[in-house]
Amino acid sequence: MALIPESVQALIDAFSRLPGIGPRTASRLTFFLLKNESDAGEALAEALTKLKSETAFCPECFNIMSAGKERCDICDSNGRDNDVICVVESPMDVIVLEQSGGYFGKYHVLHGALSPIEGINPEDLRMKELFERVEKGGFTEIIVATNPSMEGDATALYIRRKLDRLPIQFSRLARGLPVGGELEYADPNTLLRALSGRQKF
Amino acid sequence: MALIPESVQALIDAFSRLPGIGPRTASRLTFFLLKNESDAGEALAEALTKLKSETAFCPECFNIMSAGKERCDICDSNGRDNDVICVVESPMDVIVLEQSGGYFGKYHVLHGALSPIEGINPEDLRMKELFERVEKGGFTEIIVATNPSMEGDATALYIRRKLDRLPIQFSRLARGLPVGGELEYADPNTLLRALSGRQKF
Repeated sequence: MALIPESVQALIDAFSRLPGIGPRTASRLTFFLLKNESDAGEALAEALTKLKSETAFCPECFNIMSAGKERCDICDSNGRDNDVICVVESPMDVIVLEQSGGYFGKYHVLHGALSPIEGINPEDLRMKELFERVEKGGFTEIIVATNPSMEGDATALYIRRKLDRLPIQFSRLARGLPVGGELEYADPNTLLRALSGRQKF
Repeated sequence: MALIPESVQALIDAFSRLPGIGPRTASRLTFFLLKNESDAGEALAEALTKLKSETAFCPECFNIMSAGKERCDICDSNGRDNDVICVVESPMDVIVLEQSGGYFGKYHVLHGALSPIEGINPEDLRMKELFERVEKGGFTEIIVATNPSMEGDATALYIRRKLDRLPIQFSRLARGLPVGGELEYADPNTLLRALSGRQKF
């Protein structure tokens, strides 16, 4: 005797494949949609179907953009610094950097970070395209804004080694205490970085 | 300048409509699907589309079942106690009760609990159908297994008041310490219930 109809189980399984969604959450979402009389499920199905057909990667910076465009809005813009390039791991990082309101240069989205353990090598990322862009010249600074993690650091070092011969300034985002955070909750590594990077005031 | 393409934002919005999924989680899921090369997104879209067309509610107990059947497997089964009925709030509750392996009677799914604050009245639930089933006779016990919450308790009291004149035994699931739990983490209300319901051994 099947306790759960096949189509219900199929949706639970499909939700479970998403990151951070376990079987319990997947069931909760499924039963919510079963009970719900709004079009939340239909809207989700439609948005999922359109996702890949209506988006593309910018051929210059590899950020996501609407399909059919030649380049993304940032690459297309005339109002940005053309001599700074900021290398990030994912399109989400572009969004948060833009929202910070502190960066006005160009971007390059790698779509990941180097990780020999997970088998992610330079050829799995948009590395070749980055090197081509930088070698073409024009940039005076490259901000490697990969995550402050082992993988992000390794990726930054790899990029510097590959481009070291060029007359370009390499930089990483500062590390230290998050603004609004409390000293007592800072982890030892962050505190160590905050100490060694302490600044006169 | 739109930072996020329309179709990406549409999927973030659609995920955000699900319970327990905020804008950050919705973005994370969306960017996961954008980057992901498997068919996780397509599988989810398909399962969502099929969900409502391939399921129906059992006309007897209102549990979910595969569309096209006359009654659900439990109502259809000959091997179950026909004199006990267990009233639950949702189809999920049927599944967990079945998994406990301790109940062999029939079910009735209300699809919610009474909540005047949220505007959920008896006519919004499968109450009328429950009363009709019980009044037809045949049941000697009704286990009102609504949640151990204010709404669940109110729903149980309402059911008892409506059916009190019938020669039927009313019961609620026992409350006390969860098996495997620790006294020191029990909340005061649960502890109070565990004390007042203490049993000789």
